[in-house]
Amino acid sequence: MSEVIATYLVHDTKDLQKKAESIALGLTVGSWTDLPLLEQEQLKKHKGTVISVEPLEENSGFIKIAYPSANFSADLPAILITTFGKLSLDGKIKLIDLQFSDELKKQFPGPRFGIEGIREKVGVFHRPLVMSIFKGVIGRDLAYLCEQLKQQALGGVDFIKDDEILFENDLAPFEQRIVEGKKVLNDVYEQTGEKTLYAVNVTGKTFELKEKAKRAAELGADVLLFNVFAYGLDVLQALREDDEIALPIMAHPAVSGALISSKFYGIASPLLLGKLLRLAGADFSLFPSPYGSVALERTEALQIAAELTKEESFKKTFPVPSAGIHPGLVPQLIQDFGIDSIINAGGGVHGHPDGAIGGGRAFRSAVDAVLAGVDLKQAAKENEALQKALDLWGMVEVK
Amino acid sequence: MSEVIATYLVHDTKDLQKKAESIALGLTVGSWTDLPLLEQEQLKKHKGTVISVEPLEENSGFIKIAYPSANFSADLPAILITTFGKLSLDGKIKLIDLQFSDELKKQFPGPRFGIEGIREKVGVFHRPLVMSIFKGVIGRDLAYLCEQLKQQALGGVDFIKDDEILFENDLAPFEQRIVEGKKVLNDVYEQTGEKTLYAVNVTGKTFELKEKAKRAAELGADVLLFNVFAYGLDVLQALREDDEIALPIMAHPAVSGALISSKFYGIASPLLLGKLLRLAGADFSLFPSPYGSVALERTEALQIAAELTKEESFKKTFPVPSAGIHPGLVPQLIQDFGIDSIINAGGGVHGHPDGAIGGGRAFRSAVDAVLAGVDLKQAAKENEALQKALDLWGMVEVK
Ligand SMILES: [Mg+2]
Ligand SMILES: [Mg+2]
Repeated sequence: MSEVIATYLVHDTKDLQKKAESIALGLTVGSWTDLPLLEQEQLKKHKGTVISVEPLEENSGFIKIAYPSANFSADLPAILITTFGKLSLDGKIKLIDLQFSDELKKQFPGPRFGIEGIREKVGVFHRPLVMSIFKGVIGRDLAYLCEQLKQQALGGVDFIKDDEILFENDLAPFEQRIVEGKKVLNDVYEQTGEKTLYAVNVTGKTFELKEKAKRAAELGADVLLFNVFAYGLDVLQALREDDEIALPIMAHPAVSGALISSKFYGIASPLLLGKLLRLAGADFSLFPSPYGSVALERTEALQIAAELTKEESFKKTFPVPSAGIHPGLVPQLIQDFGIDSIINAGGGVHGHPDGAIGGGRAFRSAVDAVLAGVDLKQAAKENEALQKALDLWGMVEVK
Repeated sequence: MSEVIATYLVHDTKDLQKKAESIALGLTVGSWTDLPLLEQEQLKKHKGTVISVEPLEENSGFIKIAYPSANFSADLPAILITTFGKLSLDGKIKLIDLQFSDELKKQFPGPRFGIEGIREKVGVFHRPLVMSIFKGVIGRDLAYLCEQLKQQALGGVDFIKDDEILFENDLAPFEQRIVEGKKVLNDVYEQTGEKTLYAVNVTGKTFELKEKAKRAAELGADVLLFNVFAYGLDVLQALREDDEIALPIMAHPAVSGALISSKFYGIASPLLLGKLLRLAGADFSLFPSPYGSVALERTEALQIAAELTKEESFKKTFPVPSAGIHPGLVPQLIQDFGIDSIINAGGGVHGHPDGAIGGGRAFRSAVDAVLAGVDLKQAAKENEALQKALDLWGMVEVK
């Protein structure tokens, strides 16, 4: 039967089995045992089922409930309302996972490009990709942004992303950023032979996003940066599904901290920033790395990456562990997230003694060294940029 | 200067002042003291400002930061991303309030009808309105729903709302619910002279909602029920602003528990279910009452209601404290939420010994008694439905 199975973590609940049964009925057919047999027969395919109850320490535990697809339309809002609508307000309860039946999965797109498609666009197949972020661009004009774009690209990074807090503005309008940015990146390409893609932040009112994204596609934009959680997963899916847009989408985790951070409430990050972003169609998922000051626990970050890349009927989404990243962390990053990940840095690029050029070069050199099995300190002897980065930020021993 | 001032509750932070300053700069111009004076001059109107820092018990406190409107477009996604985007992921931090400057407020609609407009639609001006909710309708056909609608309306309730987990389905399609529901309610009106409005659940994919809502308007729908938090506040605003829809909107709190429930993370409920729903244009806001098993703390529920109804440049939104409501609670409800509120019950209507008719009558009788200054027990002597309700659920002494 087509269904979604929800896993919840419940606290402060004495009778888990009773709680589970009351959810399974309360969020589907309402009542059951007092119904006439004929009605039970009619409602059978709509009835929720307790799949399992797994007690943990006192008065807490995991509960799994199956909700038949017959009860909801095949869209994420309907699935969220069914599985964690009223229930999200019902005491200490956190939504840990949603398992979609194969039939239900078919009704979602997954990434349009995925890791392979993105690699083809960049023309790089056998190493982690490197990304850098604009810094301090609020209130700056287009010329300032273009210069910063150029410096970053000259360092050899594969992607440069807008600051997620850069919205439509008169100083550096969306369309001009795309057009002028493209010129800058083409110039750099002619100079260095290195291709860099620019992720432009698509922002504004929900019902204007598709038109803006189509315009971006017409103007030759490379990638859309999108603040999914200020809008909704279903809006991401709509941008993904529109064939007139057909651009890679980079999901930013802004605002998601309000949902994922509590142990007791909300939605688990591997589900939200992993499974659901992939299902809805993100080609990239940014999430807090386990290394910085704004950090997730290591197991949690690895679980997100696993959801993005495990074998599935969908294409794979690039994991982009972010924040606190500097070149000395590259061995640990590759150890933790593998080749199919993106090394993303802001301060770790711009804060380099030689500026963004030096930052990009240091990262690229660190990646090459790790893949060649060469120690970073050794590699730094032949790469000044890497040496300066290690001098500044140090070298993190791989755990 | 046009701006939004955000208030945060921060925990586990030793130096609140330093934290506040790093937010004010980090989420606006990035750096400051190391900038040349000329650049400082240029960036001045983009720089965030620490408004206040108020320490609480150890390592916690309130922080207020002003963000200039120059930094964001006038839409709620941009404001949320600016004030609580990356910051939502930055440790134990909760967004408590957003104060919009008058200039910024003008760019938001508020409710189209508001409490006064809704009262005109129902033709009732001097008492709290009464609402009841469909129960156990998943998997049921249109005839079943129509019969339940009729029973509820015959009890004299002012509104009947769809179950929020009822989506588009073949047994009782959206458009048919509107058309057939209207016939039922007209019949009841001719019979009793009591007007009842039906809130139909508008669901499905985000980019189909406007068309569905327009179709609902054409078919003569009374009110739209909308699960705002499975979509986004900006989608609510879009439905509110479309003049071809122009229907009252009832905001359901489904999924909002994932955002409001933690003391340490997320978004405070008076902001989310109060101020922001009103600003974006909800005519009704449902939220957990302080009385039931799915409950908010009393002060929190009262704060939500205060945000919905205080003097403002926007029309007022009807507070609808929900869950755990029965006729014996009416004196307390009116004491807590006043005349300008909606008394909303599910079990407290359907569970009445005489069914939904008896439930509706008991509520209406309880309301009349409280407004006439008559004790419920006294009133029950002349109203059998109320007597049966008090016998079943008891009478709650007003606190
Ligand atoms: Mg940023
Ligand atoms: Mg319900």
